[in-house]
Amino acid sequence: MREPILLPLDQAELAVDLSGSLMRRTVHPSGLRVLTEHMPSARSATIGFWVGVGSRDEQAERDDAPGSLGSTHFLEHLLFKGTPTRDAYEIATSFDRIGAEHNALTAKEYTCYYAKVRDVDLPMSVTVLADMVTNSVLDEEEFENERGVILEEIAMAADDLADVASESLFEEVLKDHPLGRPIGGLPETIKGARRDDVDRHYRNTYDPSTLVVTAAGAVDHDWLVAQVVAALNASPEERWHTDREALPVRRGQAHVDAIPNVLATGATAAAPGTLTAPRVCVTERPSEQINLMIGANGLRANDPRRFAFGIMNSVLGGGMSSRLFQEIREKRGLAYTAYSFGASYSDAGLFGIYAGMAPEKASEVLKLSLLELQKIADSGITAEEHEGALGQIAGSSALALEDSETRMGRLARAELGAGELWDLDSSLTRYTSVTPAEITAIAAEIAARPMTVVAVGDVSRAGTLEA
Amino acid sequence: MREPILLPLDQAELAVDLSGSLMRRTVHPSGLRVLTEHMPSARSATIGFWVGVGSRDEQAERDDAPGSLGSTHFLEHLLFKGTPTRDAYEIATSFDRIGAEHNALTAKEYTCYYAKVRDVDLPMSVTVLADMVTNSVLDEEEFENERGVILEEIAMAADDLADVASESLFEEVLKDHPLGRPIGGLPETIKGARRDDVDRHYRNTYDPSTLVVTAAGAVDHDWLVAQVVAALNASPEERWHTDREALPVRRGQAHVDAIPNVLATGATAAAPGTLTAPRVCVTERPSEQINLMIGANGLRANDPRRFAFGIMNSVLGGGMSSRLFQEIREKRGLAYTAYSFGASYSDAGLFGIYAGMAPEKASEVLKLSLLELQKIADSGITAEEHEGALGQIAGSSALALEDSETRMGRLARAELGAGELWDLDSSLTRYTSVTPAEITAIAAEIAARPMTVVAVGDVSRAGTLEA
Repeated sequence: MREPILLPLDQAELAVDLSGSLMRRTVHPSGLRVLTEHMPSARSATIGFWVGVGSRDEQAERDDAPGSLGSTHFLEHLLFKGTPTRDAYEIATSFDRIGAEHNALTAKEYTCYYAKVRDVDLPMSVTVLADMVTNSVLDEEEFENERGVILEEIAMAADDLADVASESLFEEVLKDHPLGRPIGGLPETIKGARRDDVDRHYRNTYDPSTLVVTAAGAVDHDWLVAQVVAALNASPEERWHTDREALPVRRGQAHVDAIPNVLATGATAAAPGTLTAPRVCVTERPSEQINLMIGANGLRANDPRRFAFGIMNSVLGGGMSSRLFQEIREKRGLAYTAYSFGASYSDAGLFGIYAGMAPEKASEVLKLSLLELQKIADSGITAEEHEGALGQIAGSSALALEDSETRMGRLARAELGAGELWDLDSSLTRYTSVTPAEITAIAAEIAARPMTVVAVGDVSRAGTLEA
Repeated sequence: MREPILLPLDQAELAVDLSGSLMRRTVHPSGLRVLTEHMPSARSATIGFWVGVGSRDEQAERDDAPGSLGSTHFLEHLLFKGTPTRDAYEIATSFDRIGAEHNALTAKEYTCYYAKVRDVDLPMSVTVLADMVTNSVLDEEEFENERGVILEEIAMAADDLADVASESLFEEVLKDHPLGRPIGGLPETIKGARRDDVDRHYRNTYDPSTLVVTAAGAVDHDWLVAQVVAALNASPEERWHTDREALPVRRGQAHVDAIPNVLATGATAAAPGTLTAPRVCVTERPSEQINLMIGANGLRANDPRRFAFGIMNSVLGGGMSSRLFQEIREKRGLAYTAYSFGASYSDAGLFGIYAGMAPEKASEVLKLSLLELQKIADSGITAEEHEGALGQIAGSSALALEDSETRMGRLARAELGAGELWDLDSSLTRYTSVTPAEITAIAAEIAARPMTVVAVGDVSRAGTLEA
C-alpha cells in the first residue's frame, strides 16, 4: 500500500514527485515552513500565507481578555488595513489592478491569506502578502471602522437561516469544546473588542513558528524561500527575524485544550465535545422553509477510519445518486437539497446531515434521514454503491487538483495538520483498500451516537421533531 | 483594432487560433451548431448542451397556457428524470460515479446542461447529455415529485433576502418586459403547472435549430460533431433528425417580444422595460440587515459602449479598491459588502448596486451610492483608476480562461447571442481603446436614468429612503 509522504519537522529539505508535479518543502531554522508544488504547464500560481492559529486558540486568552472571542477573525480583517509602508487602499489596489483572486479566511484551526495570480504577478503578490502578515499596524481608527464591518458580517450570517443552523449544530455537537464556538465571535464580544487585545493576540501568535507559506502552479521553490526569508528579516518587528532562537513550530496537536478523539477511544464519559444524549435545538424564525440539520460527534482529521467514512458519506449523502438525495428529493419531492458531510479537526470532528423543506415536511425528512443512516449501519452498502463512491472520489479529486488553489491548500493543511501529505495516488490506494465491513462499522458507530437535531425557521408549524 | 471573430450562420466550418487553443465551429445543415476549443495541455473537458430558449420565451405561450410561467425551468428539472433507456437514477449515477461537476441552469435567454469531466469520461458524458436533452419522457409521476422540489427551491429563494431583493430589482426595472419575470415562476404557476403544457414547451422549443453544443479542454471537434449528429438521428423523436428541413436557427435577436435598446436609442417614452420615474420598492421582513439594491435600465449585450461600461463599473464597484467599497465599507464601516454590476440581454439590460447593512445605516449608504455614481458622471475617473481597471479586466479574464468551463460558456454565449466571439485579445484591444470621455458619458447616461431602489428587510427601522 502506498503511504502518505511524511513531513517531519527535523528534515530541512524534501523533494517529492507527485505524479507530474514536483513538491518541495523547506523547514527554515527559524521555524518558517515553505512548501511548493511546481505544475509544469501552469501560467498562474496560487500563493497562501497560513498561520496555524484559529478561533479555537482564543480560549487560552479568555481569562485576561474576556472580549477576545472573535479576535482571530478580527485580526484577519485588520491585516488588510495597512503597514508602515502600505495603506489599506494600496493593499486593495495591488491585487485589484492585476485581477487577482485575493482573499483571506479564518477557520477554527488556522488563518489564511491568499492570492491566485498570473505568473508575472507572483513577485508583487509575495511582497504584499508578506508585508500584510508581518507588519500590520492595527491602526486605532481602522479598528473602529472594521468593528462596524464585522458586526455587519455577523448580521448578514444571522439573516441566513442555513448559516444559523450550521453554527448552531457545531455549537451543540461540540459543546464545551473550543471548536464549538462561532469563528467570528458574537456581536457583544465584537462590540467590546479592544484594539490592544487584538494586537496582543497578533504579537503572541503570529511569528515564524506558526507561519506556513505554500504555493502551487508556476512557482520556483528556491526563489520563494529566499523572498519570504528576506521579507521576514526586513520587518521592523524583531519577532519575525529568522536569526532569533526558534520557537517550537505548531502542528495540529499543539492547539490549546486539545482533547482525545472521543469516538476513537470509545469514551462515553462527558468529555468536552462529547454528546451524551440526543436533543432537539430549535431557533424559531419566520420563514418559508425549515433548515434542518442532524449531527453527531465525528472523526478527527487523522482518524484512520476516515477513508471508510468518506465512502460511507458518499453513498449516504454525497451526490444526486446518494441515498438521502434519492429518498428525500427524487422519490418524494420533499426538499430541494439533502446531503451529509463530515468536518474534521485535529482532536474532534462532526458528522452532519442537512436538508431544507417546508415545515410540514420536516418530521418526515428527519425520520427518513435517520433511517437511511441506520440502514447502512444495519446492512452496509451494495457493491455497486461501493464502486460508484470510489469512482466519485477519484474523479472529483483529479478534477479539483487541476486548480492550483486546491494544491496550495492541500500542502498547507498537511503541514499544519498531522504532518502527512496524502497525494492523490496514496489516498486513492487507501480508499481502494477499505473493506465493506469497515464501511458498515463506521456507519454503525456514528448511528449509535446521540444525535443532535437543529431546526431553524418556522418550527412551530413543523409538529414534533425527535432525535 | 482587432475585431471579434464573426460566427455567420451560412459558414458551415470555421477554425480560429485563439492564442494557443484552437476554436472550431460546425453549422450542420439541420441547424445544429457545435463549437469546441481544444486546450493542448488539458486532461479534462467541459461539455455543454445549450438550448437558446429561456424564461423570457415563455411569454409566447401565455395566452393558451396561463400556467406556463416557470415552465422552462420546470422542463430543465424534468430532463434529469429519465428517457426510454435511462431512468433518473441511472442519469444521476452516470455522473456521480465519475466525480463529474454536473448540473444545469435555466437563464432568461437560454438553458444549459453541462458536465466537467476527465478526458476518459467525455464519451459517456456526451452520450448521456444527448439522451437527456433529446429523449426525455416527462413521466407524470416524476412530474408531481418535481413540482414539490421546485416549490422547495422557490421557498429557499424566498428565505434568502438578497435573492428576494435581486428578483425584485429585475422585476421593477424591467417592468412589463418578459426579462423582468422570475426565472423559476411563482408558487401559484408551479402549483398549477400541467405536464402537457411543459411537454408542449419541450416539443415546441427543443430541436436542432435551438441546440448549441460547446466543449473546451481535451476534446476533438470532428469526433464530437459525429457523436452529436448520431445521437440526434438515433432519437425516436423525429423532430431531432438531422435530415429534416432545417428551421431557422435562433440567435439573440430571435427572442419573442424583443424591444429596441431604449438606452441606446435615447427613447424616453414608456416602452416596455423602460422606467420613467424614480421609485422605492419595499419588502418588509424581520431581519438584522436591509438588503439594498439600486438599479436602472442598462446596456444590451452587444451595445458598443459595454467596454466603457466595464471600466466604469470596475472603478465604481468592481473590487476592494472600488469607490463604493472604499466609501461604504473601508472609510465608514457601514456594510460588509458593496458592489455594482451590469446584467445584459439581447435587447435590454440592467445596471445595479448592492449593499447589505443595519437598517439605521441604509439611508446613508443609499445616498453615498448615488453620489459616487454621480461623481463619475460629473468628473470621470482618474488616470490611475483607468489603468487599474484595465489591469483588473485583463488579469481576471486570463485567470478565468484557464478553466475549460469558462471557455465552454464563452463559445455558447457568443453563438446564442449576437454571433460575435470576443476572444481575450480582441476584447482587451477594445477595452484599451476606450477614452475617458466615453467612460464619463456612460456614467452620466446611467445616472440620468430614473432609479429604482429596492429594500428588503426590517425597512420600518430605516427611516426615509429616496431614489
